[in-house]
Amino acid sequence: MNEITIKPIAYVTNERVELKDDFWGNVISEITLTEEFPAEALDGIEEFTHLEILFHFHKATDRNIVWNSEHPRENPNYPKVGIFAQRKKNRPNLIGTTIVKLIKREGNKIIISNFDAINGTPIIDIKPIMQEFLPSEKVSQPQWTTDLMKDYWK
Amino acid sequence: MNEITIKPIAYVTNERVELKDDFWGNVISEITLTEEFPAEALDGIEEFTHLEILFHFHKATDRNIVWNSEHPRENPNYPKVGIFAQRKKNRPNLIGTTIVKLIKREGNKIIISNFDAINGTPIIDIKPIMQEFLPSEKVSQPQWTTDLMKDYWK
Repeated sequence: MNEITIKPIAYVTNERVELKDDFWGNVISEITLTEEFPAEALDGIEEFTHLEILFHFHKATDRNIVWNSEHPRENPNYPKVGIFAQRKKNRPNLIGTTIVKLIKREGNKIIISNFDAINGTPIIDIKPIMQEFLPSEKVSQPQWTTDLMKDYWK
Repeated sequence: MNEITIKPIAYVTNERVELKDDFWGNVISEITLTEEFPAEALDGIEEFTHLEILFHFHKATDRNIVWNSEHPRENPNYPKVGIFAQRKKNRPNLIGTTIVKLIKREGNKIIISNFDAINGTPIIDIKPIMQEFLPSEKVSQPQWTTDLMKDYWK
């Protein structure tokens, strides 16, 4: 079935132990590489202000899903949309991606802000953000997403 | 060992059959969902101008790697950096992520530009881009990355 096996390269430590949808703005997270990686796997990362973190939605365990369209956050005021038109956790392959701010690197750890995963989350990859990989033209998005995101980074 | 199993949700069709580092600017790609997904898994995606595509670097097969720092593209003019300070294909977990432009959606397919994966590449996820998930402050990056990227999107 073309399955691909991946494994954590690091884990998150932060103060957020409960799953919550919103209010990630003040969370500071530490990401520590597993023993498989030497600290130098992070060498040079200090030169970037932003990183992309790939992580495993390890608490999303409902896997008996039919991928029909649905109202995001079960809010009937939002239109029904497909799983690939939203960023919800409970999705095929359970991988989240977030662009974070790098505060500092310390040996085999990085300290970051603007990250939205709870304590203990397995990290799948860390990539540097370069301007050339960001949109070069205006991004537009439907109104329901602006409403859904209003308290996310507060 | 905390392994996680994932599998393709779609595949890429485009004219790029050979692995090349640069010149992705004119490649138009079609991404077709596997039979596991109804077309409505893409419903509402037309409302977004940009998407993030997660994909498997399925041709990167050298897996006997010690993750020491190295010169990107083996170019001695670039500093030695760790694997997590660069975006090279041959990396832990072999997952690539790229922000692309959505040209159109047709049933269970999307047509995109600004994508840098070859024909036949397995797709792991599709996520909509929202302004709230892009950097809100200036991004800075080391000079070597600007040089490395100079022909990437040409």
